Amino acid sequence: MRAAGEPDRRKLIAAVLGERPADLSIENVRLVNVITGEIYPASVDIAEGIIILVRTEGEPGPEAKERFDGGGNYLIPGYIDTHVHVESTMMTPENFARAVIPWGTTTVVADPHEIANVMGVAGVQFMLESGRRSPLRHFVLAPPCVPSVPGLEESGAVFTEKEIGRLLDEPGVIGIGELMNYLKISQGDERMSRIIAEGISRGKFLQGHAPRLQGRRLAAYRLAGPQSDHECRSSGEAAEKARLGLHINLKTSSLSNHLPEALMGIQGQRWRDNVSLCTDDVHAGVICREGHLNRVVAKAVGYGADPLEAVRFATYNGAREYGFEDLGAIAPGFAADLQLVEGLNGCRPLAVWIGGKLAAREGEMVMDWESGPAEPFCPPKLAYIRSEEDLELAAPAEGGETLVIQSRADGPFNRAAYERLPVRGGKVVIEEDPDLAWICVCNRYGKEQKTIAPIRGFGSVSGAFGATVAHDSHNLVLIYRDPADALLAVKKIQEMGGGMALAEHGRICASLPLPAGGLMSFCRCEEVAAQAERLEQALKEKWGNVWLLKHATAALPVLPGVLITDLGIVDGDRQEFLPQFRIPG
Amino acid sequence: MRAAGEPDRRKLIAAVLGERPADLSIENVRLVNVITGEIYPASVDIAEGIIILVRTEGEPGPEAKERFDGGGNYLIPGYIDTHVHVESTMMTPENFARAVIPWGTTTVVADPHEIANVMGVAGVQFMLESGRRSPLRHFVLAPPCVPSVPGLEESGAVFTEKEIGRLLDEPGVIGIGELMNYLKISQGDERMSRIIAEGISRGKFLQGHAPRLQGRRLAAYRLAGPQSDHECRSSGEAAEKARLGLHINLKTSSLSNHLPEALMGIQGQRWRDNVSLCTDDVHAGVICREGHLNRVVAKAVGYGADPLEAVRFATYNGAREYGFEDLGAIAPGFAADLQLVEGLNGCRPLAVWIGGKLAAREGEMVMDWESGPAEPFCPPKLAYIRSEEDLELAAPAEGGETLVIQSRADGPFNRAAYERLPVRGGKVVIEEDPDLAWICVCNRYGKEQKTIAPIRGFGSVSGAFGATVAHDSHNLVLIYRDPADALLAVKKIQEMGGGMALAEHGRICASLPLPAGGLMSFCRCEEVAAQAERLEQALKEKWGNVWLLKHATAALPVLPGVLITDLGIVDGDRQEFLPQFRIPG
Repeated sequence: MRAAGEPDRRKLIAAVLGERPADLSIENVRLVNVITGEIYPASVDIAEGIIILVRTEGEPGPEAKERFDGGGNYLIPGYIDTHVHVESTMMTPENFARAVIPWGTTTVVADPHEIANVMGVAGVQFMLESGRRSPLRHFVLAPPCVPSVPGLEESGAVFTEKEIGRLLDEPGVIGIGELMNYLKISQGDERMSRIIAEGISRGKFLQGHAPRLQGRRLAAYRLAGPQSDHECRSSGEAAEKARLGLHINLKTSSLSNHLPEALMGIQGQRWRDNVSLCTDDVHAGVICREGHLNRVVAKAVGYGADPLEAVRFATYNGAREYGFEDLGAIAPGFAADLQLVEGLNGCRPLAVWIGGKLAAREGEMVMDWESGPAEPFCPPKLAYIRSEEDLELAAPAEGGETLVIQSRADGPFNRAAYERLPVRGGKVVIEEDPDLAWICVCNRYGKEQKTIAPIRGFGSVSGAFGATVAHDSHNLVLIYRDPADALLAVKKIQEMGGGMALAEHGRICASLPLPAGGLMSFCRCEEVAAQAERLEQALKEKWGNVWLLKHATAALPVLPGVLITDLGIVDGDRQEFLPQFRIPG
Repeated sequence: MRAAGEPDRRKLIAAVLGERPADLSIENVRLVNVITGEIYPASVDIAEGIIILVRTEGEPGPEAKERFDGGGNYLIPGYIDTHVHVESTMMTPENFARAVIPWGTTTVVADPHEIANVMGVAGVQFMLESGRRSPLRHFVLAPPCVPSVPGLEESGAVFTEKEIGRLLDEPGVIGIGELMNYLKISQGDERMSRIIAEGISRGKFLQGHAPRLQGRRLAAYRLAGPQSDHECRSSGEAAEKARLGLHINLKTSSLSNHLPEALMGIQGQRWRDNVSLCTDDVHAGVICREGHLNRVVAKAVGYGADPLEAVRFATYNGAREYGFEDLGAIAPGFAADLQLVEGLNGCRPLAVWIGGKLAAREGEMVMDWESGPAEPFCPPKLAYIRSEEDLELAAPAEGGETLVIQSRADGPFNRAAYERLPVRGGKVVIEEDPDLAWICVCNRYGKEQKTIAPIRGFGSVSGAFGATVAHDSHNLVLIYRDPADALLAVKKIQEMGGGMALAEHGRICASLPLPAGGLMSFCRCEEVAAQAERLEQALKEKWGNVWLLKHATAALPVLPGVLITDLGIVDGDRQEFLPQFRIPG
C-alpha cells in the first residue's frame, strides 16, 4: 500500500535521468538508512513529493528548483505513530497535526475510538475530514469495541460488523482498531469474530490490545486475528508477544509508561523488526513542552535502546507494520517525509518535510491551511439530572452493605469491597468518612440512566468534578462530596456543550469547554494545554495528588478490576455486574 | 495475504483452549524462532494445518491425535524459494514438488516465463494446475517479458498488459515476474509501464531483475516499480540495492553463482531483513544429489553467513518479501510448514511437514497423489527444415566479412567480430578452422524464420546438438559442424515432441525427450536427471568442456553482449540488430 498514493512514475524517471528538473535537493546531510542501519554523507533529490535519488557526497545531482543545505545534520524519515487516540489530546485532527508535525511526526495511525463511542460513524467521518485538511498523513482504524463491552455500558453508538465494514470501505481507513475486548476475543466470541472477519476479508490490519495476556490465552487471542499489541506490562510479556510475531508498539502515553519493562523484554532478542513506537493517549500540554513520538524515541534511548534502532522503531518498522511501502525510509520511491535532526535521541527537528514540502522549521509550522468550521456538535443530553437528589444514593429498604469502589494508588486497577455505610433519610451518607467520595456515571446520549457509588482513596475530594471525557463510553462522570456542587458542574458542562468543570462551594472554579462531541476543543494546542492545566492545577490544589483523567479509568469496563458504568458496577475480570448492596449472611 | 487460506479461527481457538483435540504435537525440539533470533526447547501443537501453540519444555499440551518426538533436533520453518523457473528443472511442477519437498522446500514463487514464451496463458495455466496437485505451495508470478524483447525475437506468445491482467486475476498468481528488460524499464518504456501498472493497480508484487545496474539507472529502475533483485554480481551492487530497500534474493543457480559477492556486500550492513534466497534455474541432477533451497542455505553458511540468519533468509524474509503473513515462522497462526533438521547448515531434513501433514521423511516423500495426464503438448513446428542446405549460410553475392559470435570462456556474455571466412559454392564454410561451429536459431512456433551464424570458442564441436530449450524464446537452437547431423537432430527432436538430441556421423548418440511444451519431461527427478546426465556426458566426451545449456544463453536478447535469435544477431547492450555481413571500408 502506498500511503502517498500512486505517483506519475514516468515523471519521476524523467527527473532522475535529468530530463526535467527535480523540485528539491536536500544537500550535505548525514543520511540515516534505517533499512540497512548505515549512516553516510549524502544528498537527496525529490520530485513530485517522492525521493528520486540518494547521492553520495560529491556526486553531481540533477538540476533542482530549490536547494536546502542540511549543514551536516542527520536526515531521518518522518516519525510514524502506530497507535494514537487523537481525541485524547482534546484537539481536532487538524490542530493535532499543527502540534505534532514540528516534532517530526509525519504519519499517524489513529483509532477514533472515543468519538465513535460518542457519535458512531459520523464521528469517525469528522476525524477523517479534519485530518484531510492537514498535510499530516492521518490514517484511521475502524474502532471495533463500540461500546467496549455491550451490555455492560451504553454509549452513543453501537457498532456491529455492518458499521465496521462500512468504515473499512472509506478512503483512509486501513484496518480495525484496537481489539481491546481480549477476554471475549480469546474465547472466540461470535460478535467480535464477525467484526474481525470484515477486516480479514478485505486484507486489512487488525490492531490488538491484550494487557497481561500470555500462554494459551494469548495464543487464542492471536489465532482470532489481532496482529499487534501496545500493552506489554512486563519484560516476559513483551518477549513472549514478540516471539509470536505480534507487532510490539512500545508506548509512552500520558496514562501509563511500561516502556522500560517492554524494552527490556525485547532487548535480549537478536531481532526486533516488529517493534514500533506509539503514544496512545497523550495530553496537549505534553505535546507543547516535550513533543510527540520524538518523546517516545527519547524515552527508549534513555532506557537503553540504541539510538539508530530507536529511529528505526519510529519509522521503518512502523511503516512495515501497516504495509506502507513508501514510508519510513529514505530511498528512491519513498515519500519525501523527512526530518533534519542534530541527534538520534528524539530531539526536536531543525526542519520537517512532508511530501517534499517544508512543513515546519525550528519547532514552528511553516505550512498552513484553512481551518475547518468550529461548530459545536453532539452536546451532552443531561437535562434529566434536575436536582441534588438525583445525585444521591438511595439505600435499600432491607438495609445491608454497600459496594465501595477502591481507587488504588499502588496499581492502575480499582478494587471494591462491601462496607456498612451510614444511612440517613433513606440515603447512604459519606460525610463522616473523609476518604470517601461519590462517583456517578450518567448516560449522556439520551437515556436517563446512571449509577452512583461510593469511592474510596480517590483524593481529598471536595465540591465536585465532572467530565464528558471518560473512556470509552464518554458518559458524564462526576466525582464529588457535595451533590449541590455536582449539579452545578452538570449545568456548566451542559452550557459548554461538553467538557470538564470543577465546582466548590456553589461556584465553578475551573472549566474546559470541549464542544466537539464533548471530547475535543476547536482551540490550538497551546490554548487547550493552558485550559487543561488551569483545571488540573485547581484540582491538585483542592484535591491533592489527582491527575486530570483519573476519573476516566474508573469507567472503562474492558479493564481488569472493578469499574463503573451508566448501567452499574462491573467486575472487569469476569465482565459481569456486581450487586450494589448485599445483606451479609 | 494468507498463503494457506483463511482458517476456521474458532476451531483453532477451541483447540488451543483444550475444547477439542489438536491434530498433531511435535514434541522435544529445539525451536528456531526466526522472528526474534532465539532458539529454545519447545513443543508445537497443530490443528487444521495451523500452528496453534508453542509450549516451552515441560508445559502440558492440549490433547493431540498424534504425537511426534523431535528427538531434540532443530525445528525450523519450511523453506521458501523466492525466485525459480520450474521449467529449468525440466520437470512438471508436481514432479518438481516431489523432488524438492524432501529437501525442506515447502513454498516456491515460480516465474513460468519459459512455458509462457512457448504457449502463452495456456502454459501458465498448465503450471498452475500441475502445481495444485502437489502439497507444495506453488505460487506463480505473471511473466511480463514475453517475448523478452519484442521485435528482436519471436516466441510462441506475446504478452501485453491484457494477458498480464488476466493472469493476475487467476488464483495463485501473486505478482508480476522478473522485469528483466531493465534497460527499457529504467527509461520509462511505454509497454513495460502499462504492464507494471496492471500489477500496481492490484497491489501485487513486482519482481525485479537488474544485473549490474547502479546509480541513477538503478534509481530509475526502482522508481518504475520493481521491488526485488536476484542479479547482484558484485558486493557494491548488492550493498547499494539493499540501501534502496530492494529485496535481495541471494541465489545459487545451475547457471551462475554470485552469492559470495552479494553476501559480502550485505554482510557489512547492520540489518538484512530484505534478504532472501532463491535458486532461479537449477537442474534435476543437482536437486537429486544436493537439494534445492537447502543448497543455497549451505552455500551462504559456507561463505560466512550466520547459520541462524541463513535460515531466516530462507524462511521469514522470503515470506515477508511477498507478504505471506502465515508463512516462514513457527508461532500460533502460521501454517504448519515445518522441518526437523540436525543443523542449521542446509542439511537434508529428517522430516518435513506441510500444513501439519508429514510430507517427507529422511529424504523420501511419504505423501503421494494421483499424477496429472502425461500427454504431450505444443510440439515444435520444424517441418520447414527440410534439407542440409536449409542449415547452411549463404554468402552475399558482393562478398565481405561475416559476423562471428565469440563464445567467451572468461565471462558469461558473448562478443562478436567480423571475419573474412572462406566461401564455396555460394556458402560460407568453416571446415578449415577447428575453433568454428555453426549456431542456428529456428523459430519453432509456426513461422519459417531462422538465423545461422558462425560461432567461435564454443568447444570441440563435432556432429550436431539441438534443443528446444533456449532462454527465453525456446526456439530450436542448433550447434553443429555438420549440417547433415544437424538435420538428423531436428528430425529426432520433432519425433520426441521437443527435447534435446546429439547426433554424430549420421547417428543419434543421446537424446532427452521433453514432450511438455518442448521444455519439460513427464518423468520424475531421478529419471530426468539420468537422461540429462547421459546427454551431457556424451556432449562432454565429444565436445570437451561444454555444459548442457551453454547454447541457451547465446539466444537471450535481454542479456548483455551479442545474442542470436530467430530474427537475427543482436547487440544486447543496445538492443538492436547487427548486420550479418559487412564490406570493410
